[in-house]
Amino acid sequence: MKNQCKVIGFDADDTLWENQIYYDEIAQQFFELVSDYVTPSVAERELYKTEMLNMEIYGYGARAFILSIIETALRITNNQIEGTVIAQIVELCKNLLNKPVVLLEGIEEILEILSRTPYTLILVTKGDLLDQERKLKRSNIEQYFHHIEIVSDKQEEDYVKLLRRINIAPENFMMVGNSLKSDVLPIIRLGGYGVHIPYHTTWEHEKTEINEKLERFWEIKHIIQLKEILSL
Amino acid sequence: MKNQCKVIGFDADDTLWENQIYYDEIAQQFFELVSDYVTPSVAERELYKTEMLNMEIYGYGARAFILSIIETALRITNNQIEGTVIAQIVELCKNLLNKPVVLLEGIEEILEILSRTPYTLILVTKGDLLDQERKLKRSNIEQYFHHIEIVSDKQEEDYVKLLRRINIAPENFMMVGNSLKSDVLPIIRLGGYGVHIPYHTTWEHEKTEINEKLERFWEIKHIIQLKEILSL
Repeated sequence: MKNQCKVIGFDADDTLWENQIYYDEIAQQFFELVSDYVTPSVAERELYKTEMLNMEIYGYGARAFILSIIETALRITNNQIEGTVIAQIVELCKNLLNKPVVLLEGIEEILEILSRTPYTLILVTKGDLLDQERKLKRSNIEQYFHHIEIVSDKQEEDYVKLLRRINIAPENFMMVGNSLKSDVLPIIRLGGYGVHIPYHTTWEHEKTEINEKLERFWEIKHIIQLKEILSL
Repeated sequence: MKNQCKVIGFDADDTLWENQIYYDEIAQQFFELVSDYVTPSVAERELYKTEMLNMEIYGYGARAFILSIIETALRITNNQIEGTVIAQIVELCKNLLNKPVVLLEGIEEILEILSRTPYTLILVTKGDLLDQERKLKRSNIEQYFHHIEIVSDKQEEDYVKLLRRINIAPENFMMVGNSLKSDVLPIIRLGGYGVHIPYHTTWEHEKTEINEKLERFWEIKHIIQLKEILSL
């Protein structure tokens, strides 16, 4: 790669550390709690529907997820759900914010290698700032990142704002993440570099397909392959 | 003022636009909804207690507020509250995210004046990014701000991070806001400028008193007085 890249943005959830598995776990427990009213597959469909309807006002992250679960619980039980069950749901979800931070394989190694290069690393996330700061602190990789950038979404216009904020041209920016749709495609379209590292499970909302030939794009199986891309 | 200031940060809620009144209104309606169980003053005390306990995990903003109301409703009714009432609470709170954005007096005038100066204006908030972006869009004052900075809290360390992010020394930064504790004191202690413009009602959590003589500090009654401070 002809090296024009100065800043590397990393997605956080499911790129640096485990995340989706915890959400899936909570969702399963929720389906169980409402199983007297609806089947798991109906509960799942209704939860996803609520999340999509609430996206515009609640956005992403743990708090939005909890609110959508509560709303779904009320709707699918026609408000018949007992307070004790709602209280259990609230507790379940609070645990989501206290989960251990489990780094994905190779993350520490690649960050340590990158820390000996001139690249500036930032964390780019559409989660809650508070939650992501907490995870970064617990992860022991805080020292590798210059700062956290919170974006309300990850579409092209959000990356335009981000690049303006950090005063960097697209051709000097690379984004690394597990979501083609959110982490990779928008920044490639703007003229930047994108590295896709698929995670074993993808949230329905993040699924997408590529039908075009992409430039400045790499798909890797293991994060350590960043070494080859950057000729380190 | 000897003019070293280059960037002016504005707090958003209750500095640029009405906010606390909407939260108070929702709280009053919540006290009414649980009045069969507890008196309004008990409900108020319990809600505040929940908010403080949840602060570390939920942070600030509308979503945190809604979650704390639901949790309080469950606790003070010993989980006896009916689903229909919880559903009403959820609806009430969702309205919070669709309130009109009412600018405080003089805001447009002072921003228009500042737009003809070399100062860079940023919005500094500990609310939700999504919510604050929505408000900024609806307010018709978006064009005056370079960007929004989201901080997870407004203590000294958060301003240190912020100044590092925007690459500005404290002595080149002024913060304007309605909370002495969050908007003004930390930045003065760091060596920056602080302008306090009290709002008619202050959230309990933001109340503070000054027992020290402050430098680089102004308290104003009307936002237009920024003109005098900056010799415009």
